[in-house]
Amino acid sequence: MSGALLATLREVVGAAHVLTRDTHDLSAYERDWRQRAHGHALGVVRPGSTAEVAAVVRACAAHGASLVPQGGNTGLVVGSVPDGSGTQVVLSLQRMNAVRAIDRANLTMTVEAGCVLQSVQQAAEAEGLLFPLSLAAEGSCTIGGNLATNAGGTQVLRYGNARELCLGLEVVTPEGEVWHGLTGLRKDNTGYDLRDLFVGSEGTLGVITAATLKLFPPPAARLTAWAAVPTLQSAVDLLGLAQQRLAAGLTGFEVMGQFALSLVDRHMPPLRVPLWRQSPYCVLLENSDSEGEDHARTQFEGLLEAAIERGLVSDAVVAESIAQARGLWHIRESIPLAQAQEGLNIKHDISLPVSRIPAFCDETDARLAREIPGVRLVNFGHLGDGNLHYNVQAPAGEDAKKFLQTQETRVNQLVFDAVARYDGSISAEHGVGSLKVEHLAHFKDPVALALMRRIKQAIDPHNRLNPGRVIQ
Amino acid sequence: MSGALLATLREVVGAAHVLTRDTHDLSAYERDWRQRAHGHALGVVRPGSTAEVAAVVRACAAHGASLVPQGGNTGLVVGSVPDGSGTQVVLSLQRMNAVRAIDRANLTMTVEAGCVLQSVQQAAEAEGLLFPLSLAAEGSCTIGGNLATNAGGTQVLRYGNARELCLGLEVVTPEGEVWHGLTGLRKDNTGYDLRDLFVGSEGTLGVITAATLKLFPPPAARLTAWAAVPTLQSAVDLLGLAQQRLAAGLTGFEVMGQFALSLVDRHMPPLRVPLWRQSPYCVLLENSDSEGEDHARTQFEGLLEAAIERGLVSDAVVAESIAQARGLWHIRESIPLAQAQEGLNIKHDISLPVSRIPAFCDETDARLAREIPGVRLVNFGHLGDGNLHYNVQAPAGEDAKKFLQTQETRVNQLVFDAVARYDGSISAEHGVGSLKVEHLAHFKDPVALALMRRIKQAIDPHNRLNPGRVIQ
Repeated sequence: MSGALLATLREVVGAAHVLTRDTHDLSAYERDWRQRAHGHALGVVRPGSTAEVAAVVRACAAHGASLVPQGGNTGLVVGSVPDGSGTQVVLSLQRMNAVRAIDRANLTMTVEAGCVLQSVQQAAEAEGLLFPLSLAAEGSCTIGGNLATNAGGTQVLRYGNARELCLGLEVVTPEGEVWHGLTGLRKDNTGYDLRDLFVGSEGTLGVITAATLKLFPPPAARLTAWAAVPTLQSAVDLLGLAQQRLAAGLTGFEVMGQFALSLVDRHMPPLRVPLWRQSPYCVLLENSDSEGEDHARTQFEGLLEAAIERGLVSDAVVAESIAQARGLWHIRESIPLAQAQEGLNIKHDISLPVSRIPAFCDETDARLAREIPGVRLVNFGHLGDGNLHYNVQAPAGEDAKKFLQTQETRVNQLVFDAVARYDGSISAEHGVGSLKVEHLAHFKDPVALALMRRIKQAIDPHNRLNPGRVIQ
Repeated sequence: MSGALLATLREVVGAAHVLTRDTHDLSAYERDWRQRAHGHALGVVRPGSTAEVAAVVRACAAHGASLVPQGGNTGLVVGSVPDGSGTQVVLSLQRMNAVRAIDRANLTMTVEAGCVLQSVQQAAEAEGLLFPLSLAAEGSCTIGGNLATNAGGTQVLRYGNARELCLGLEVVTPEGEVWHGLTGLRKDNTGYDLRDLFVGSEGTLGVITAATLKLFPPPAARLTAWAAVPTLQSAVDLLGLAQQRLAAGLTGFEVMGQFALSLVDRHMPPLRVPLWRQSPYCVLLENSDSEGEDHARTQFEGLLEAAIERGLVSDAVVAESIAQARGLWHIRESIPLAQAQEGLNIKHDISLPVSRIPAFCDETDARLAREIPGVRLVNFGHLGDGNLHYNVQAPAGEDAKKFLQTQETRVNQLVFDAVARYDGSISAEHGVGSLKVEHLAHFKDPVALALMRRIKQAIDPHNRLNPGRVIQ
C-alpha cells in the first residue's frame, strides 16, 4: 500500500523529489525546531508546482494517507512534523519558491509558498518597496508557513499580522482541487472570507501554494530609542503617548523586564545592554518616518522629553546611527538565546488587552513567587500588540530539566488561568499545533470549538490534512 | 403554525416588540433602501438583548421559520429584507444599541450590533478617540450591518474595511447558541478565524449581536485638496507619489470623472465644483496629520508642487478652512444624488488592481461607446482602494427607465466580463445580497463557491438564516 503510494508520488514529482529514509536523512523534516518532537514519515515529497501539489494531495487521498504540509519547519508549537506512525507524508513546499509577479502601482507581490521570508523582503526591497513582516526566523521560515500560522513579529503594531498583509491566496483543497484566489484587490465583497479561513489554519484545511501580499513605500528614515521606565504601567502610558504623537510612525514598541535583560548582560557581555540596572523594565521604540531622519529625530526627542516630564521615562537613549539602532534591536532579539544559555524554561506566548497587562503581571508575578519561591521571570515582548513572552525560569541553581518536568503543568495552569481571567489568549502569535491543542479544549469558548470542528469536517471530512493539529 | 411562533416570540421579547402587519406599517422593514424589492414578513421581532436574540433564533428553528437579520436596512444589494412569502421573520437589531465599554489604553470599544455608525463615531470622539469607518449612510446604518457586509467607505485606504476595524465578535449561531468572542486582542492565534468568517457573511451564518472595535488617536489636523489630472494614469501616478510622501497620513484618495462632476454642477449649482471643466478627471486627497495644520499644509503643498512639476496635476486647490474641506467632500458625496436627479442608471461597484484601472477604463469606456452610441459614464470612486462606482447612464434625452429595462443585462455582462479579464471583483464594498447572487455563480471561482456552500451547509444546515443571500 505505502509502496504503491510512493511509486505514484515518484511519478507525480519525479523520483528525485520523493525522499525516504532508506536513501535520505529525513531528520530535518521530522524533527521540530525546538526539538520537542521527532516523528517518522512515510516519505517527504517536494512538488515543484501547484499542479504537482494538487496531484500529490489526490494521490494521498486515493491511498488514504494523511499529509503534513511543511515550509521552513521553524514553528514553535509542533505543527509541521509528522507523527510517529510512519504513515504520514510530509509535503514540503520548499521547491515552490518563485516570485511570480510584483505590481508596483498596485503595491502588491505574488509569491509562491516556499519563498523564504527574507527573500520576499529582499524582492520587495529590490523594487524600492517594503514587505514589513519580520521575525527572528526570517532567514529560514517560508511565507507559506507564515500565512498558515498567521505569524506576528516585530512590525505588527503598524502593519498587522501576516493575515493583514495578505490579499489573495492560491490553495489546494483536501480533495486536490485548486482555489485560484490570487487577487490583488483591497476590496472584494463577493462571498465568505475564505482567505482568512485558510490563513492561520496551520495546514489543516488546505495547502497554501501562493499568495498575493501587500507592499508599502519604505520609510525615509527609521530611528530606534531605548527607554527605562519605572513601572509596567508607565510603559503602557508611554505607548499611548507614542501612538498619539507618532501615529502610524510608531512601528515598534517592545518591553523587556530587568531579569530578561540581565541574562543578555550575563551571557552576551559584548552587547552592552543600556539602562537595565536602574529600572524594572526597559522599552525599545521604533519610529519610521516618511520625511527623513531630522524630522524623525525631532519627533522622537519631543516624545521622550514629554515622557520624562510626565515621569513615564526615567532615562532614554536615541540611537545615533543605523549600527547603533541595529545593536539595540539585537539586544532585544538576543533574549531568547540568553535565556536558553541560562537553561530551559517554561515558555508562554500570551496576549492581553494592553490596558490589563500591568495588573496581570502584578498578580501573576506574585502568585508564581508565592507558589515557587525564587522563581525567575523572563518577561518580554511586543507590548504594543499586548503580546508577552512570559517565560518562567527555575530558581537560581536549580536543575532546569527537573524544574520543567515537575512544574510545567502546574505553571501552565496557573498562567493560563490568569490569562483567561484577564480576557487574554494562551497563544498570541505561535499558534496551536500539537503543543496547545489540549489546552485549547479547556480555554477556548465551547461554541467556537464546535464551529471549528464543523468547518474542519466540512472542508476535510476524511481528516487528511495535518490531523490532530489545531482541533481534535 | 405561524400564530404559535408569533405567540412564542411575544413571550420572548414582549408583545410590544413583535410587529405584525395587522397593527403596524412594516414597509420600512420590508422594502430595501433603493426600493428594488418589497417583501412580506410574517413579523418583525425586536429583541433587546443577546439572550433574547438567541431565544428568537431557537424559536424560529423550532417552528421551521427562516430569519432575516436587519440593522439600519440601508444595504444596496437587497440583503436585509424578507422575501414575498409572508413566512420569514425579520430580526431587527435596532434595540440593541448600547455602547458596552470603551478601553482607552487598549484603544478598543465594545458596542452592540444595533448602534448607528454615527453614534459609534461620536462615542469614540467623546473619549478623544477616532473610530474611522465612515460612509454615506452613517446616520442610519448600524455597526452590525457594517460588519455583516464588511462595509468600506471613504477611509479604507488608511484604516481598512470594516473587517480590519473589528477585533472581536459576539454571535448567535443558527442553532441559537452564543459565541462569546468579544476579545480586544491584537493577536490571538487559537484556531480558525471565525471572526472574519462572520464578518461579510451578510447574516447567512450567524447573527452578530456585538463587536469589539479598534480605535485610533485622532489626527491633529486634517486637510483636503482637489486636483485636476490630465489622465486616469496621472491619477494612479499621483496616488503612488502621495503614498510615498504622506505614508499613512494619506487617508483619502477619490477620483471623479468629468461627466460625474458636470452632473453635480448642473443639479447642485450652489456647490461650485472646482476645476472640473478643464480636465477629464479630478482627484480629492485627504491628509491626516499627527503634528498639526502647518505641518500638514507644508507636506501637502510639497506633494502637489512635485506632482505639478511631473505633469501629473494640471491645477490644484488646498482647502483653507474646515468649512471649505467639508465643501469639497460634499461635492464628492453629492455625485450619487446628482446622478439620480439626472435619471436612473446602471450601477456598478467594482474593484480592480490599481495599476490596471486606466487600461480597464480605456477599453470599457470605448466598448460601451461603440455598443451604445451616446452612452454617458458616471465614473467615480475610491481610487486608492481600486474601487470604482462605474455607472452607466442613458444617452442624453433617452428615457432612463426604458434604458435600464433594455440595456441592464447587456451592460452588466459587458462590464463584468471586462472586470474578470482585468482580475477585478464585481462587488467591491456593497456585497452580494440577492442582487448579485446569480452573477456570483458566473464570476466567482468554482472551487471557492463549492467551499462557501460547504461552510454554509456546515454552520446553517437547515438554511434558516437569510436564505438565498450570498450563496444559493
